[in-house]
Amino acid sequence: MTRSALSTLARVLAVAASLSLAPHAVGQTDPLPSWNEGPAKKAIVEFVQTTTTQGSASFVPTAERVATFDQDGTLWVEHPMYSQVMYCLERVPALVKAKPELAKVEPFKTVKSGNREAIAKLPMKDLEKILAATLTGMSVDEFQAEVKKWLDTAKDPRWKRPYTELTYLPMQEVLKYLRDNGFKTYIVTGGGQDFVRMYSEKTYGIPPEQVVGTAGGTKYGYDKSGKPFLTKEPKLLLNDNNAGKVEGIHLMIGRRPNAAFGNTAGDRQMLEYTGAGDGARLMMLVMHDDAQREYAYGPAAGLPATKVGAFTQKLYDEAKQKGWTVISMKDDWKQIFAFEK
Amino acid sequence: MTRSALSTLARVLAVAASLSLAPHAVGQTDPLPSWNEGPAKKAIVEFVQTTTTQGSASFVPTAERVATFDQDGTLWVEHPMYSQVMYCLERVPALVKAKPELAKVEPFKTVKSGNREAIAKLPMKDLEKILAATLTGMSVDEFQAEVKKWLDTAKDPRWKRPYTELTYLPMQEVLKYLRDNGFKTYIVTGGGQDFVRMYSEKTYGIPPEQVVGTAGGTKYGYDKSGKPFLTKEPKLLLNDNNAGKVEGIHLMIGRRPNAAFGNTAGDRQMLEYTGAGDGARLMMLVMHDDAQREYAYGPAAGLPATKVGAFTQKLYDEAKQKGWTVISMKDDWKQIFAFEK
Repeated sequence: MTRSALSTLARVLAVAASLSLAPHAVGQTDPLPSWNEGPAKKAIVEFVQTTTTQGSASFVPTAERVATFDQDGTLWVEHPMYSQVMYCLERVPALVKAKPELAKVEPFKTVKSGNREAIAKLPMKDLEKILAATLTGMSVDEFQAEVKKWLDTAKDPRWKRPYTELTYLPMQEVLKYLRDNGFKTYIVTGGGQDFVRMYSEKTYGIPPEQVVGTAGGTKYGYDKSGKPFLTKEPKLLLNDNNAGKVEGIHLMIGRRPNAAFGNTAGDRQMLEYTGAGDGARLMMLVMHDDAQREYAYGPAAGLPATKVGAFTQKLYDEAKQKGWTVISMKDDWKQIFAFEK
Repeated sequence: MTRSALSTLARVLAVAASLSLAPHAVGQTDPLPSWNEGPAKKAIVEFVQTTTTQGSASFVPTAERVATFDQDGTLWVEHPMYSQVMYCLERVPALVKAKPELAKVEPFKTVKSGNREAIAKLPMKDLEKILAATLTGMSVDEFQAEVKKWLDTAKDPRWKRPYTELTYLPMQEVLKYLRDNGFKTYIVTGGGQDFVRMYSEKTYGIPPEQVVGTAGGTKYGYDKSGKPFLTKEPKLLLNDNNAGKVEGIHLMIGRRPNAAFGNTAGDRQMLEYTGAGDGARLMMLVMHDDAQREYAYGPAAGLPATKVGAFTQKLYDEAKQKGWTVISMKDDWKQIFAFEK
């Protein structure tokens, strides 16, 4: 073999090697390695390519790239109970200790009893009383200290891991992929804005100012030394569920998202509003159909509705009709949690 | 002269030339060229240096760098009347045309009459009625179209220029200087959030999601074709003045600012709250004491209070006591508007 032929062979081998290293996208690493090939993964990649390629008819300037994500059930596990509700229930003993008169008052009496069956049966009205008593009436600083302490120690009953480890690896990849392509990623959650902000940056790389959630009022005042502080008031400013998600997006972001991700009927309006804009749009719904690796629940999975995660048949039909993409955890996700490896 | 000596001379001359181009900071351009040397400029530069120098005791990580700016009277002219109030007053004829029954009702009757003296005397309660009628009750899209049209055509009566040209060049330099050093710059205004968002990006480089203002509720609904839209409701969510500025910062940003800029008693709590945090802090108040180049008003300038811009003696005393920096437009600003050149 001549020297020139050797050189050509070397170049051919180098190209072949680079191709075999990147089977999904020639010359670059797969940004979504935990996703199986399929319509869901394809929809995400095509959306990013069409909105970020200069000259594309659907090109979106960097400053206008916004993607919103529901949290519970979309970015992390919501079953059998939202982690924030767990926090509130677990705060009740300390609350009763500070205010002993509550020990004889419902629903605090039931929660304090530890009777899980009775607690699970508490009506929404009683849950709201527990939320108001454990999330308001203290300074923002005190609240943040309590939540931090809980996050550092509390564990999910099934996986025996901190709640913040129960995020979906494929969705973490989507967050990063979108950010790497100039999108601002927001959490838009029915959960408490102040609560989610305590871990959003560390858990998802989403800073507090990019968390839109159910928000109560605060009240400015001064302590004895004259130092100003904020108290969390039992006054609802924004119920960030259903239509409230769109109203919250307008209040906090002031732009229509280009992409939105949810998993329940509470995300319907956010997806509708996102889809009603011009240009390329991406609307996705996570369907919990993997009882073995996570959970399977809701009519969309052919299963009865549960207290959390109402991915109803009606929502499923709207998704099909409007061309939203349904993500099957079972079929679309190669791996669900980072700790599974 | 030898060739080598010539070359040395050339190099010396080149260095001298570069020095004379940057008299304020050897080797780099002055980031605040419209500021006179003095305590105000010094305070800004020292704050930026101490918070952004790795290893400094007051170093702030990039993600946590937040600076908040009042708008009216701090970033642009507020005298003799806030531009948003001008917008609302100028919208009244169209409003009366659409709803003829208002022609006989106060305060619309007075505004429609064009009697400037009578309009100037309208009490706050009547102004609020005008604001509610001209800022709510239409879709967000309609509102944005109206504001855009007005911004493109309306002119300040003194300078005969669009309001968006009446920004203070020295403050534009501060915004840019802070952003170049990793700070997120926010507007925190008593003005309407939706109104200010219509020009904040173009005028100040501040995107809509970084505008915190007085905010009303919106209501999600569908038009006849089923397309979703938001209607601006006459329901106050956040009165972003006084203590409301701090409550708004908590709601929309979720972090305590490191630096805050204001000019009236309505900014007092924002500056107090900013000053109550750890590490290096920068609190500044713009004093309107330049009747020739802009305006002079308020007790801090030794002049009577006016309807706008109440920089009271009490606020001035608090600033002195707490070490906030008072900016004298007359003494600290070399040039006030970009168009003056």
